[in-house]
Amino acid sequence: MPINAQILDNPKSDRVRRIADLVRDKGRERSGRFLIEGPQAVREAVTWRPDVVQDLYVEVSQALEHPRIISSTLEKIVDKSQDSTIYVHYCSGDVIRHISKDAQGILAVGNARAMQCDTEDLKLGRKPHIAAFWQVRDPGNAGTVIRAADAAGCDAVVFVDDCVDPLNPKVIRSTVGSLFHLPVLHMGTDEFFGWAKDHDMDVWAADVYGTEDRRPESLPQVLADPASADEAKAVLFGNEARGLEPEILGKCDRIVSIPLYGKAESLNLGTSAAVMLMSLAMSGHIETM
Amino acid sequence: MPINAQILDNPKSDRVRRIADLVRDKGRERSGRFLIEGPQAVREAVTWRPDVVQDLYVEVSQALEHPRIISSTLEKIVDKSQDSTIYVHYCSGDVIRHISKDAQGILAVGNARAMQCDTEDLKLGRKPHIAAFWQVRDPGNAGTVIRAADAAGCDAVVFVDDCVDPLNPKVIRSTVGSLFHLPVLHMGTDEFFGWAKDHDMDVWAADVYGTEDRRPESLPQVLADPASADEAKAVLFGNEARGLEPEILGKCDRIVSIPLYGKAESLNLGTSAAVMLMSLAMSGHIETM
Repeated sequence: MPINAQILDNPKSDRVRRIADLVRDKGRERSGRFLIEGPQAVREAVTWRPDVVQDLYVEVSQALEHPRIISSTLEKIVDKSQDSTIYVHYCSGDVIRHISKDAQGILAVGNARAMQCDTEDLKLGRKPHIAAFWQVRDPGNAGTVIRAADAAGCDAVVFVDDCVDPLNPKVIRSTVGSLFHLPVLHMGTDEFFGWAKDHDMDVWAADVYGTEDRRPESLPQVLADPASADEAKAVLFGNEARGLEPEILGKCDRIVSIPLYGKAESLNLGTSAAVMLMSLAMSGHIETM
Repeated sequence: MPINAQILDNPKSDRVRRIADLVRDKGRERSGRFLIEGPQAVREAVTWRPDVVQDLYVEVSQALEHPRIISSTLEKIVDKSQDSTIYVHYCSGDVIRHISKDAQGILAVGNARAMQCDTEDLKLGRKPHIAAFWQVRDPGNAGTVIRAADAAGCDAVVFVDDCVDPLNPKVIRSTVGSLFHLPVLHMGTDEFFGWAKDHDMDVWAADVYGTEDRRPESLPQVLADPASADEAKAVLFGNEARGLEPEILGKCDRIVSIPLYGKAESLNLGTSAAVMLMSLAMSGHIETM
């Protein structure tokens, strides 16, 4: 409801400096807030997680007597935000661009604590499908895998052990809004395996090599049995460079690899996650169509 | 065989300037050559398409009496190149970095004409699987889809109509070597449909929307019939922003869409190609395992 009529037009003001600081890990830690950039991500945040969004910063043109939001796309997002208690601030283009080169006229500031999802908060259905990522470090990859998990209809994403901060603006940009579509949890390695056990989920490792005494099953073999593809499970993917350590593989119930039919030596983490999660989801849905 | 003992150490020399110019479309057109950057792409080029590679530029250290290639990884690539008539030039680090920030110590210059594959040159098997892309414009996407087609064991990639140059260094980097694993052709739209017909291949459009009178089939339905998934075909993907035009869809034998099970609105081109091509490949391979 509240729209601040005063236009923020000083890129050097304290407020603008504090928002721009959210691009950095330290800025987010210090303030407990995070930055959402661009129409698509802001729209998805306002639509699906209005409880998280505190402030909206939108570019206005001052060419006419009254300030005017620069496009109808952005106007619709601002309208939608007015269903909730989100503060809207009109800004000059200079201010918006000073905060972020990826804003395309709109930014939001969210409450980091409200985005946090703990295992106690998470309500899982009868047959949960979880996508888990161990030590994912690259922000672009982290965003891509969250988007893939969303597309595959996973119930949640778990970042296991030491991963990139999912509230890093680069991660959020790469999720194209999916960060606001499903819960993203963070757990230690032991905590993750304990949690999966408590919820009767098998943990499947997505891994090409397996261990000395356990060769991976090939994904098409797994898909040939739709009932198995559809069972409650958490699929665990490894670090982009090092994969999964043997100790981690040893704790997994199954090891499944994506076959390569040509001469390519590998798929990257984002593509592997999309292929495995989507093909399991499709296999699980074949019977019900 | 031929190794040039003289070390190139002047970043401003004519030769270095000419190589650096291959980053630009005009530089490649003018010279008929193209640039391959970094150990992985150069290794794959030297291994699979030595006929294409003319010159290798490798970084040496001059700290000792004799110049020494800076790592054993690069040494192995140079050794491999000596099975063919590839000229090796020792370079200072400055020269290598001046040509490309993505060289990691090694570059190759290839013959663009030798990379060209025409329909007459292409020998297709009994049941070809082709990945085709209409008006793909982004170099990163173009590289990713070539890599996905390689992983899925496609017989060739066809860039249809006005696409990015596959010899653009950004495309090559994104293929991670796959450009040298399978033929990449370029055709006009009519030429493509005529060629597919001549080779008894159905053209499947990968498209979410379909046309007014033809709804797309859902990919899992298609996969439920492995014989159909395995038949001779060219799968055609649209432009990253605009998809496929109705006129193009009208010429396709089938329209197949990837279902989205969560709240994600779309997958990007690279991910869509990987999911569709890999799941068709896996479906075709289930029976034979």
